[in-house]
Amino acid sequence: MAQLFIALVHFPVIDRNDRIVASAITSLDLHDLARSGRTYGVSAFYVVHPVPDQREFAARVIDHWMEGPGRQFDSRRREALELVRIVPDLEAALASAAAIAGQQPLTVHTSARAVGRLGYAVLRERLEAPDGPPLMLLFGTGFGLAPSVLERTDLALAPVLGPGDYNHLSVRAAAGIILDRLRGH
Amino acid sequence: MAQLFIALVHFPVIDRNDRIVASAITSLDLHDLARSGRTYGVSAFYVVHPVPDQREFAARVIDHWMEGPGRQFDSRRREALELVRIVPDLEAALASAAAIAGQQPLTVHTSARAVGRLGYAVLRERLEAPDGPPLMLLFGTGFGLAPSVLERTDLALAPVLGPGDYNHLSVRAAAGIILDRLRGH
Repeated sequence: MAQLFIALVHFPVIDRNDRIVASAITSLDLHDLARSGRTYGVSAFYVVHPVPDQREFAARVIDHWMEGPGRQFDSRRREALELVRIVPDLEAALASAAAIAGQQPLTVHTSARAVGRLGYAVLRERLEAPDGPPLMLLFGTGFGLAPSVLERTDLALAPVLGPGDYNHLSVRAAAGIILDRLRGH
Repeated sequence: MAQLFIALVHFPVIDRNDRIVASAITSLDLHDLARSGRTYGVSAFYVVHPVPDQREFAARVIDHWMEGPGRQFDSRRREALELVRIVPDLEAALASAAAIAGQQPLTVHTSARAVGRLGYAVLRERLEAPDGPPLMLLFGTGFGLAPSVLERTDLALAPVLGPGDYNHLSVRAAAGIILDRLRGH
C-alpha cells in the first residue's frame, strides 16, 4: 500500500471574495485532521503556514497535549497529534514526506469546485497498488486552495458531492470524507 | 428516497471516564453538521440539549448568521443553518421530524464502539427504497452517546473504520463520513 500524507494549507488560499489570503490556524482543525489522519493510516499531517507566529501557535497547541497539562488526559489524542509536522510551505512538506517515504510524493489537489476530474475509485486503486508512488492530499482552509496551488499539483480530485449541488463542506468534514473514500473499510 | 434527519445529542453522553454528562454546545459543530447535512440532503438537523441556557446560546449562534451581522456575508452558510432545530430532548426531535416526514422516523445509533453491526450498504439501500421509513441518525458529542440511548434506538450502525483499529474521529468528521457513506455520489 502506498504511503499517504495530508497537508492543511493556510497560504495561498482564497477568501469569500476570491482574494488570495493567509488564513489563521484553528486549533480544532489540527485535532480533527490529526484524528482523521490517524484513523485512515496517514504517515504524516503537515500544517502549512508561512507566518512564524502562526507556526508557534500551532506548536503550542500540540505541545499542550503531547508534553504539557493535556498529556495525562487522552492517549488517543496524543497518538493522533504525533502525526503533525508544522512547516512554512509546501516545499518543506514535500521534502519531509520524501524523507519518510523514500521518494517524492505526488500532490493531489482537493476542492469543492469542479477543477478536478480524477475519481475516488481510481485514486484508491493507485493507493492500493503495491508499487504506487506516495501521495500527498492538499486541503485548503478559508474558501479553498488558491489557483496557483492547482497549477503546481500533479493530480486533482473531483469534488465531494451528495445528492444535490450544494457542497460547502467544512475542511474538517471534507478531509474525513475524502480519506474515507480513499482508505475506508 | 426516504427522508433523512440528523440529531447532535449533548445529553446523555459519556465523558472520557465513561460518566454520564451533558456536554457544552460548540458553535463549530453547528456549522459543520449543518453544512454536511445540507450537502447530503438532510431534511432537518436537531441540536439536542436539556439546558435552556445552552439552547439559547445555540439560538444566538444561528441568529447571528441568519438575521444578524453575519447575514450579509455568506448565503451558503444560511442555507445550511436553515436546517437547524434546537430541542430539549430526542422526543421533541422525533415529534418534529414526524411532522415534517408524515411518519415517525426510525432512530439510528452511531458510535465508534462496536455496538452496532448494521452495515452502511444495507442502510443506504433502505434509504434509497421508494417506500422506506424516514431515518434519524443520532450523533453523540463528548465521548459518545450514553448506553441508555442505544437501548432506545431502532438500529445501530457499525463503527467507521480505516485500515487499522484507531477510530477516534471527531463528531464533525464522523458525521460527514457517515452521511457520505449513506448519501454520497
